[in-house]
Amino acid sequence: MRKYISFLVVISALVGGCTADKPEIRVQRFGSVTGLKPEKLDYYKELHADAWPAVLETIRECNIQNYSIYLQQLGDEYYLFSYFEYTGDDFEADMKRMADDPDTQRWWKETDPCQLPLDDDGVWTTMEEVFHTD
Amino acid sequence: MRKYISFLVVISALVGGCTADKPEIRVQRFGSVTGLKPEKLDYYKELHADAWPAVLETIRECNIQNYSIYLQQLGDEYYLFSYFEYTGDDFEADMKRMADDPDTQRWWKETDPCQLPLDDDGVWTTMEEVFHTD
Repeated sequence: MRKYISFLVVISALVGGCTADKPEIRVQRFGSVTGLKPEKLDYYKELHADAWPAVLETIRECNIQNYSIYLQQLGDEYYLFSYFEYTGDDFEADMKRMADDPDTQRWWKETDPCQLPLDDDGVWTTMEEVFHTD
Repeated sequence: MRKYISFLVVISALVGGCTADKPEIRVQRFGSVTGLKPEKLDYYKELHADAWPAVLETIRECNIQNYSIYLQQLGDEYYLFSYFEYTGDDFEADMKRMADDPDTQRWWKETDPCQLPLDDDGVWTTMEEVFHTD
């Protein structure tokens, strides 16, 4: 969730539920993918099974919610697929805020070496949404 | 969302939001993947850009919500990644109900030939969740 973000075109948005008792929340959904080094598979899973509280707190402070990461082997390669929802009104500013957080920077020093980005645009590649229903 | 479901182990659950004014809803998240035939890419996108209302209604009736499908090319192959949430209390029964719906069966007659399942267990392969934060 960094450099590629600056190139990002948000391709979908939906109105959050639970609107009866509070203002509507605009939710932007993001599906992303990156590679995972086979030799780092166990360490990546171990890290994420017990993610650092300060990192989780920053995720929430940056208006990211309902954030999941999935692991899948395709052929001989391993891939990570993420899904999250953004509820703020300035995605780039919130992603910069996240990138400036010292704990998040330390976390990324652990996770980045595990990953094999698909291209030079960033750590994660945003996928094209082709379907959504609330 | 069919045959493989019967082998499915639900690896995660969370309490849905919006609990202040109604009972808590247990939400099970599913991330899945399948292949897409390159020659069917345009037709698959066209179908899902205007999905049949009866199919969407059945999805909701079967307690599926917040359902997205993403498209991504990895190497020379195309893949579809889905994320959805199940809010019912009998997933296999709801998936059978979906599979028994005539409109859904007609829909799958259009979509199944577009896809390249990863294995013989079903149309979609469930991925391993390695991280989640609400």
